[in-house]
Amino acid sequence: MSTSDAELLVAVTRGPVTESVHRGHIAVSDSQGRLLAYVGNPHFYTFARSTAKLLQAIPLLEAGGAERLSLTDAETAITCASHNGEPEHTQAAMSLLGKAGLGVSALDCGPQEPLLRREADRLKYEHVAAAPIHNNCSGKHAGMLALASLMQVSTHQYTHPDHPVQHKMLQTVSDMCGIPAERIELGVDGCGVPVFALPLAALAYGYARLGRPDDLAPKRAEACRRIIAAIRRSPFYLAGTDRYDTRLAELTAGRIIGKMGAEGLYAATVPELGIGIAIKVDDGAERALYPVATEALLQLGLLSEEEAERLAPFHRPDVVNRRHETVGRIQPVFRLIRTQEHTC
Amino acid sequence: MSTSDAELLVAVTRGPVTESVHRGHIAVSDSQGRLLAYVGNPHFYTFARSTAKLLQAIPLLEAGGAERLSLTDAETAITCASHNGEPEHTQAAMSLLGKAGLGVSALDCGPQEPLLRREADRLKYEHVAAAPIHNNCSGKHAGMLALASLMQVSTHQYTHPDHPVQHKMLQTVSDMCGIPAERIELGVDGCGVPVFALPLAALAYGYARLGRPDDLAPKRAEACRRIIAAIRRSPFYLAGTDRYDTRLAELTAGRIIGKMGAEGLYAATVPELGIGIAIKVDDGAERALYPVATEALLQLGLLSEEEAERLAPFHRPDVVNRRHETVGRIQPVFRLIRTQEHTC
Repeated sequence: MSTSDAELLVAVTRGPVTESVHRGHIAVSDSQGRLLAYVGNPHFYTFARSTAKLLQAIPLLEAGGAERLSLTDAETAITCASHNGEPEHTQAAMSLLGKAGLGVSALDCGPQEPLLRREADRLKYEHVAAAPIHNNCSGKHAGMLALASLMQVSTHQYTHPDHPVQHKMLQTVSDMCGIPAERIELGVDGCGVPVFALPLAALAYGYARLGRPDDLAPKRAEACRRIIAAIRRSPFYLAGTDRYDTRLAELTAGRIIGKMGAEGLYAATVPELGIGIAIKVDDGAERALYPVATEALLQLGLLSEEEAERLAPFHRPDVVNRRHETVGRIQPVFRLIRTQEHTC
Repeated sequence: MSTSDAELLVAVTRGPVTESVHRGHIAVSDSQGRLLAYVGNPHFYTFARSTAKLLQAIPLLEAGGAERLSLTDAETAITCASHNGEPEHTQAAMSLLGKAGLGVSALDCGPQEPLLRREADRLKYEHVAAAPIHNNCSGKHAGMLALASLMQVSTHQYTHPDHPVQHKMLQTVSDMCGIPAERIELGVDGCGVPVFALPLAALAYGYARLGRPDDLAPKRAEACRRIIAAIRRSPFYLAGTDRYDTRLAELTAGRIIGKMGAEGLYAATVPELGIGIAIKVDDGAERALYPVATEALLQLGLLSEEEAERLAPFHRPDVVNRRHETVGRIQPVFRLIRTQEHTC
């Protein structure tokens, strides 16, 4: 376990005192795999968790999803989402399942309350039990099921590492990130499918290539472009109301597309510049993610001061108590180290 | 900000990979203020948060709460609690308020959903809004209001640092922990009252003296004994269903009494041995607290192997996904450094 090289990323203050801190690692890569900047250990080895979803959407498009299933932007974007479980999200996942000739009973992600609190509360007020379709991963699972259908393989145990769909997932992540599959350790995700452990810099490289797929095989490049285009046109389906991923894509009109993952993961791509970023907050705290992501984008000159200002509630969120008083602040405290003068 | 001396306390594994880690500091003190053992920086300066509640209960007892208000064990223990908002808890807080001639409208802690999830859900199913009485701190606030009543001062703005009740709080924490009040920085808590920043070792010292108050003035010593006795007899009121603080006191029949606090705080007292322990997980993660507290007590020989085994779901909790599969584990990875051979 290599943890001592983690750098301070975020300070949580309360009044005059720094009450808590978050540490971690950042890697910034171009689409040639050159490390452009970093904090801590850019090769820190960890699970990509839900940041892999954008890469995991590739096989569905490569298999002809766009043509054979006439996927809408919402249906494509929802396969990449850790969505809020809002009606639009569950509708998109159900619609995708329907096109594959399947129903919600095919989902094997387990039930989860909608991430959006007011939607979770609404279900309770109405005495509706949370179901697998509300699981933030239901779109990814719907995409995996649709892929099984296009591959003409059984959907039985589609979450198992030995299922052809999961083979495709591993191989695609391996290819995109330039890491041999045998160097990718597997774990089991919150939703039951395999998750992939790899170095942060490899994940950043995968994201850079996703955004600028010019050097990839034509079919794969087209799949990448369709994923980016779908999220650009329908960013709501990547996350939802009040969520950073949606706000970032909206605010930048898709110039930057970022994706959070459980246990402190963030990855982003800047397609026009062919730049990928990967972040790990090593204690897994989600509250540190958006301050770090926003600050990293700002330091790299990828986000303007004005845009960062509009993201202030994510960049430097107030700590607010139950009497709605501001009693502290969460703020980034790191500085990216550039490795190359001419970049970004 | 001194953070680089934090030591690794907990590893969170997923399959074969350590996915996240938690760092921090531990201080163990006797009732003479001797540091017995530590991890990281035992003098780490941080807010005591809710671990201060047991010390903050002292003035109410010193003011004659037991005699003048005929406090029950439940009413005494609830003033020390970060309670679950279960009916027993809200009842005890209301009953205490009633004895002070006050109602729930006097509470200025802000509303909070009950910490116990099924109780929070029950309120939603029944369309009942969460109120200040459900706030995990409502017992502490009821105790402060009762103290104001015994002191014959206005309850107006009783949460303000300049109110006589808050002066008592600061002075008592300062006295018990052996830190001049001017060296205690103040912040504002989640429930609106002042919180106290001090070195961990001082907090451990305060807890050691709370448990073995022999050297304190008789009235204060009696207050400390009454607090410990009330929690021993009614540990449910310290936290509630499925909570570590309650379980630890129950399992050890009050031999050890511990209290969690927000942002990664834990403090415990072993009254018969006059030992106090203070822990800070420096990223603030609650999930790391109980593994660390249990392991520290075990390494100090204060908890038997058999007792630790019965606390296994807190000591080494499984990471369980939404399909109810065990996919990882949270486990302590530190070793306490003893400073004195003859201790514990």
